[in-house]
Amino acid sequence: MPESAPQLDKLIQLLAKLPGLGPRSARRAALFLVKRRESLMEPLAMALADAARAVKPCSICGNLDTVDPCLLCRDSGRDAGLVCVVEDVADLWAIERAHIFKGKYHVLGGTLSALDGVGPGELRIDALVARVAEVPVREVILAMNATVEGQTTAHYIIDRLDGTKAQVTRLAHGVPVGGELDYLDEGTLAAALEARTSLK
Amino acid sequence: MPESAPQLDKLIQLLAKLPGLGPRSARRAALFLVKRRESLMEPLAMALADAARAVKPCSICGNLDTVDPCLLCRDSGRDAGLVCVVEDVADLWAIERAHIFKGKYHVLGGTLSALDGVGPGELRIDALVARVAEVPVREVILAMNATVEGQTTAHYIIDRLDGTKAQVTRLAHGVPVGGELDYLDEGTLAAALEARTSLK
Repeated sequence: MPESAPQLDKLIQLLAKLPGLGPRSARRAALFLVKRRESLMEPLAMALADAARAVKPCSICGNLDTVDPCLLCRDSGRDAGLVCVVEDVADLWAIERAHIFKGKYHVLGGTLSALDGVGPGELRIDALVARVAEVPVREVILAMNATVEGQTTAHYIIDRLDGTKAQVTRLAHGVPVGGELDYLDEGTLAAALEARTSLK
Repeated sequence: MPESAPQLDKLIQLLAKLPGLGPRSARRAALFLVKRRESLMEPLAMALADAARAVKPCSICGNLDTVDPCLLCRDSGRDAGLVCVVEDVADLWAIERAHIFKGKYHVLGGTLSALDGVGPGELRIDALVARVAEVPVREVILAMNATVEGQTTAHYIIDRLDGTKAQVTRLAHGVPVGGELDYLDEGTLAAALEARTSLK
């Protein structure tokens, strides 16, 4: 790149590595930042350094927090016998935004994937099995994404939890609230019809 | 947002302000960064702080560089009598990537826009007029975007340069190299036909 300042080149290179940003949008973001030096650029530099220093994964559930165990694991108001297994921290955040789940979490850190070379050893599955036996956990809710990888991982975990006493459940499939039938795929419609509930 | 670590919340908030990133992609970017602490997160924090400290606009042309005047303005191999006027530093970079222009630049810092309240005073137009008279500049190439705002700004600058001796030119309109006629708008085709060049 022909930008004359090496500091800008370096910044653009690093920004381009973020998901959702390519070389062109990274250049745009860098210029946007330089024009907002005090209101955005310096605060962002500080926020990155702060978070890099303070935020670490929870050794129990895999959530990200400044304390270990994380605040969710420390919360005695949450039911430790009910564990919701998610692929990633972003999924934990999504469920927390619904303000409905009062159990604990277990973040796998991904899904099994032969293509990407992710085996059971790369995920926090051994830790889950040990945790289920030790706490002990009454119910494990598998909240993986409804993708092939997510469901493969779910099946593997069901097998691994076979020897424990925990009940294993999964999220319901069905029509999204606010969703229009006309826009739904046949798989979802079939699942929603199959799992229909009685009204009277 | 229910993320438990305030440092993460802060980081996500700031990332969401970048062009091209919304709240969801900012969360994704933050998690991506936390997982790449040493390879990306800490280097990015440092690159931001470095660039915020070192990079400043050139007082002559408005380009961004660590030195003032910038390296392009200092380059005696470039023709100071030929000035290419662009809207933004990104446009200067785009022209530099073509490795074809050996004059100097003048970055306006935007376009005239009644809607956004950008008048001539907000742009570096007075500085351009003064520069053209002082250097003196032989030819001013108007390389604004071919948008309504870009062309309005170009017309305003033509008026302002009326009293000077500089020749004022603009970029040619025509078929982009590698472009297919079938995909071009009628305005471009009309301009390309109008400005057709003789082959023999």
